[in-house]
Amino acid sequence: MTSEKMVSQIKEWLNEAAGYIQVSLTNKLTVSQKSNRTDLVTNIDEEIQAFFIKKINQHYPNDRILAEEKGFDTIDSLKGRVWIIDPIDGTMNFVMEQENFCIMIAVYEEEIGQLGFIYDVMKDELYWGGKNQGVFLNEQRLTPPKDVGLSEGLLGMNAYMYGKNIYAAGEIGHASMGIRVSGCAGVELIAMLKGSHIGYISNLSPWDYAAGLVLLNEFGYQYSNIEGKPLAFANREYFLAATPTAYTQILENFIRR
Amino acid sequence: MTSEKMVSQIKEWLNEAAGYIQVSLTNKLTVSQKSNRTDLVTNIDEEIQAFFIKKINQHYPNDRILAEEKGFDTIDSLKGRVWIIDPIDGTMNFVMEQENFCIMIAVYEEEIGQLGFIYDVMKDELYWGGKNQGVFLNEQRLTPPKDVGLSEGLLGMNAYMYGKNIYAAGEIGHASMGIRVSGCAGVELIAMLKGSHIGYISNLSPWDYAAGLVLLNEFGYQYSNIEGKPLAFANREYFLAATPTAYTQILENFIRR
Repeated sequence: MTSEKMVSQIKEWLNEAAGYIQVSLTNKLTVSQKSNRTDLVTNIDEEIQAFFIKKINQHYPNDRILAEEKGFDTIDSLKGRVWIIDPIDGTMNFVMEQENFCIMIAVYEEEIGQLGFIYDVMKDELYWGGKNQGVFLNEQRLTPPKDVGLSEGLLGMNAYMYGKNIYAAGEIGHASMGIRVSGCAGVELIAMLKGSHIGYISNLSPWDYAAGLVLLNEFGYQYSNIEGKPLAFANREYFLAATPTAYTQILENFIRR
Repeated sequence: MTSEKMVSQIKEWLNEAAGYIQVSLTNKLTVSQKSNRTDLVTNIDEEIQAFFIKKINQHYPNDRILAEEKGFDTIDSLKGRVWIIDPIDGTMNFVMEQENFCIMIAVYEEEIGQLGFIYDVMKDELYWGGKNQGVFLNEQRLTPPKDVGLSEGLLGMNAYMYGKNIYAAGEIGHASMGIRVSGCAGVELIAMLKGSHIGYISNLSPWDYAAGLVLLNEFGYQYSNIEGKPLAFANREYFLAATPTAYTQILENFIRR
């Protein structure tokens, strides 16, 4: 079971992590490549992950952890209580823009999302919520955005999928009011929670979507892999989330046509 | 001649306009289509433009005006002193996101940019400067970003050009560290001034780039139409701006190859 105490703790940890990141940005980052030249990791990604792992081990020693950086990026199952963490989501933006990146934390129990936190550090905007508890921006409860169709709104998009028309992403983009590419899953999921964007198509790992799904769920958004099947919480996969109307239009008119 | 007084006046007008926009966002916008379903204009675009025109006519009755909305969107020449205005740059974002839009104002004399103002209203960030006067964020003087190459930075991009590989925009994007699509020229030009992005490729009208060029010039950025020829300040045209190194790489390795 999650609790109010757990929510308070996570907020406190996020706050400490954000303070550390803010100070770190005044120093030189150590940037390394992971799988390719545009897949970056910094010393801060690793230090923030280590910080959260230490806190979780200390307070919840029986819980398990799935997290982006090395040593924690695979898990055998989602049995029991599992924390899913992206210490810095949007590392490229973190390095290049020093903004438009997020910390994301989710708590799952027996495969069901219980708590989700997406923290836009530089804007100091924490979007968070829990199963049947609603969605909040900092301490303010948010209302669900309208269910609008594909042709009526902006769509967050992975640039590569759009450019190569993977799963008709280019055509889907053209059928919308336009695409936006932020380079950060957290920023895109926040745009959906705010009602700025009607959906998001990308290629994501579990730590990119775990927290977001808890919040999208509260607002009645639909999500799945790009073929309409449940997300596997395993490897990177093509991801689709949208308003119920746009989700159905995307699957029926573009993916399954 | 421009003067300190003119700079103060423009800042005051921008401030008034921003206040009006902030209040307007609490009411319902009247949104209309212009050339197509994704080319929008609101009552606020028109009201803000009318506000600036009134101010200019009152204080500088001999000056001429080129501005995005109807009645002012063509001009026979840039002789004398000309104000070039985009009352709301990024109208789609204004309507859908209520952020990521800018007010842009430029003052040109005998075809030469003298003053430029790009105001991100919701962030309350005014990037401004003048010929041989440097670039400022609000009251703080900025230092020019480093001259980095195409493979080392993020590139602001027009989604359509990227998706259709117009002037090799798709390939250019892949050669960079990644593309970003914000849907607002002002936001992209600001990203260059901050050093977050190394360049910007889009399809722009004079009011989209006039203010930005004054500021890019101060920082030694290169800019032209996509073929390397001077911008015409007339119709919409393909636009390229980048660090000197990236600009040369884009033209030589992709456009003129």
